[in-house]
Amino acid sequence: MNLDKRIKRIAIEAKDASFKLATLSSSSKNKALRAMAAAIGKSSSYISSENEKDLKRAKRDKLSSAMIDRLYLSSKRMKEMSISLREIARLKDPLGEITSLWDRPNGLKIGKVRVPIGVIAIIYESRPNVTSDCIGLCLKSGNSVILRGGSEAYNSNRAIYQVLTDAVSHIIPKNTIKLIPTKDREALDYLLRLSDEIDLLIPRGGESLIRYVTEHATMPVIKHYKGVCHVFIDKSAKINMAIDIAFNAKAQRPGVCNAMETLIIHKDIAKKLLPLLGEKLKDAGVELRGCAKSKTVLPWVKKVREKDYYKEYLDLILNLKIVDSLSEAVSHINKYGSSHSDAIVTDDHENAYRFLREVDSACVYLNASTRFTDGFQFGMGAEMGISTDKIHARGPMALEELTTYKYIVFGNGQIRV
Amino acid sequence: MNLDKRIKRIAIEAKDASFKLATLSSSSKNKALRAMAAAIGKSSSYISSENEKDLKRAKRDKLSSAMIDRLYLSSKRMKEMSISLREIARLKDPLGEITSLWDRPNGLKIGKVRVPIGVIAIIYESRPNVTSDCIGLCLKSGNSVILRGGSEAYNSNRAIYQVLTDAVSHIIPKNTIKLIPTKDREALDYLLRLSDEIDLLIPRGGESLIRYVTEHATMPVIKHYKGVCHVFIDKSAKINMAIDIAFNAKAQRPGVCNAMETLIIHKDIAKKLLPLLGEKLKDAGVELRGCAKSKTVLPWVKKVREKDYYKEYLDLILNLKIVDSLSEAVSHINKYGSSHSDAIVTDDHENAYRFLREVDSACVYLNASTRFTDGFQFGMGAEMGISTDKIHARGPMALEELTTYKYIVFGNGQIRV
Repeated sequence: MNLDKRIKRIAIEAKDASFKLATLSSSSKNKALRAMAAAIGKSSSYISSENEKDLKRAKRDKLSSAMIDRLYLSSKRMKEMSISLREIARLKDPLGEITSLWDRPNGLKIGKVRVPIGVIAIIYESRPNVTSDCIGLCLKSGNSVILRGGSEAYNSNRAIYQVLTDAVSHIIPKNTIKLIPTKDREALDYLLRLSDEIDLLIPRGGESLIRYVTEHATMPVIKHYKGVCHVFIDKSAKINMAIDIAFNAKAQRPGVCNAMETLIIHKDIAKKLLPLLGEKLKDAGVELRGCAKSKTVLPWVKKVREKDYYKEYLDLILNLKIVDSLSEAVSHINKYGSSHSDAIVTDDHENAYRFLREVDSACVYLNASTRFTDGFQFGMGAEMGISTDKIHARGPMALEELTTYKYIVFGNGQIRV
Repeated sequence: MNLDKRIKRIAIEAKDASFKLATLSSSSKNKALRAMAAAIGKSSSYISSENEKDLKRAKRDKLSSAMIDRLYLSSKRMKEMSISLREIARLKDPLGEITSLWDRPNGLKIGKVRVPIGVIAIIYESRPNVTSDCIGLCLKSGNSVILRGGSEAYNSNRAIYQVLTDAVSHIIPKNTIKLIPTKDREALDYLLRLSDEIDLLIPRGGESLIRYVTEHATMPVIKHYKGVCHVFIDKSAKINMAIDIAFNAKAQRPGVCNAMETLIIHKDIAKKLLPLLGEKLKDAGVELRGCAKSKTVLPWVKKVREKDYYKEYLDLILNLKIVDSLSEAVSHINKYGSSHSDAIVTDDHENAYRFLREVDSACVYLNASTRFTDGFQFGMGAEMGISTDKIHARGPMALEELTTYKYIVFGNGQIRV
């Protein structure tokens, strides 16, 4: 069979199976999740040996050490895969909840009920543990899943897929978990055309992958472009709190999307705050890039260029910007930010309210670090990623965000007149 | 300026303005909506004369009489535009509602608050009254709107746009309502590329327009493809109720998307029901196309072809299918339907429950006509259209469906450890 027909067949099978999975009981799904968790433990040496093949090839192909690290399935990472599947089993089933219910004058009763989306395709790179996380989340939320991992992790992904699906073949409907069985680049393009079968596509990886997928996909896509996050220190901020939050947002883990990339400071507090915070950041190895005004306070910082304000450094580099007003801070964030996570540190109630209202980002913080944008920190118990889109899901995505709704309408013979 | 730059400029202006509109008070928005309603009354002769230009051209170009009818702005239709704007003013402002709020162990309080989407582009055909409806709904939901109507209604759309925006220029922020000021086909293609400025695109029109837009858009799209709706008459159905519902779903207004296209009947009730219902439908001028089994009960019906089951007739034509079981009915609907609206008529509680659960459509009915799928009938007070997509909005779309959410997180110095 040609590759395009094989990919189409996979998607049709996943779609057909999704109707069965949608009505599978919570207890069967949880049983399957626990069986998967146990299977990873039992088959860890097999998974390791397949992972070894990918690692060898990655070294031979001279991939970066960061890439190789992401690829490596240590025994700790395999244990975490197991733990995560067990955690998902413990979470509340998101399906079937009636989120509203109302009566109409003609006696119709209308309810809005949470249901699975159908078929979700995940396009991802490097980390093979994404395979098991996505299988777990899609199963629990009642969605068929089609996985397309990166070619660099091909053997690892296939091994995990095999182990997990073998463990649950007697519990869940056939064809609800699918892996694209080829490294062929064309398979991706075929997949992106299947809007009749695939209800939602979630790309996870670098910006170029995400741009490619978004441009070529014919079905809805929910994506995470980048995290250009800000902290704004208002003139009324408590100095110590401001320093702690800004330092945490930048330096606690700079390589993640919810870390701060630009610090904005009100002019009336800059002289007091910046020297203290600047030293602390410098000591932690952070390179500072400042606007003209910040260079008058801290002459030793590098000069920032306008294009730097758009950048997601994911590194120990920080832009500085001194502003005359809250409005200037908000405008800067809405212009240069990525609608991800932005914080204000202030003691002024009115300014707090305005910032929370006017900043157009998925997560807007008052007096807390942007680093909390994360499904686990939000108390969702799991995470499929963070959406910087505005449609369907914004911010951390977990089980509920993998569902949609339908209306159920109860009548006793009503007709339209 | 080149056309691509002009379109881009329009979108950037709408995006910048959207931040101001997002925080405009309800009372200002409602004042603007009432001013628009009044302006239509005052300028009806100007709108009529511009509409006359489009009608003349349509007749010269020999458009179908249905097209010309859709294009015509009678004084009744203009009154309805006014009434609709006043109705939207009376509806509850969807923005600012906190839909959930919870505490985290570290003291963070997380709230989910309803906010506008940002910039919504509407691509539509024929009916110029869509211009005023969309302006009203987007304004009330706090979204900037970019309108691109069909070239056949160019003068009418421009006149309505001019009258409405002139009436509110002193009330709402500049640039929140935009009309693409050219009939040029290329303008649409430029618009579809502006994913940085346009947050959501809603096409309204024929299937070919919608397919084109969906394939070429780089931003999220919510669409209505077609309504292939079903009524399933279970063996335990009350005969009179079944006849009334099926007749209403087909014949009350066959040209709309929530009308029934295929009637499915359980074999154990077919002999009793079909002769009565068949006569009634025939008397109303409905052409019946039946499966082999239904032809044994009603030999005079035409033979249905498999491809007919996929069709949205929007006409007095009805497919018949006799099934052996509820499961067969559900499978037929999930395969041939368009996930729009489907009904079961039954007295059996277990079957009702299964049908409501297993049919994967936006609106699933028990003992009522599919004709109720409509924002007004659902009690939403307005309607932007009906979504057959599964992401973000399903079924009737009104004000709430034109919003998204953001998280607001309240701390008192929390940092990530």
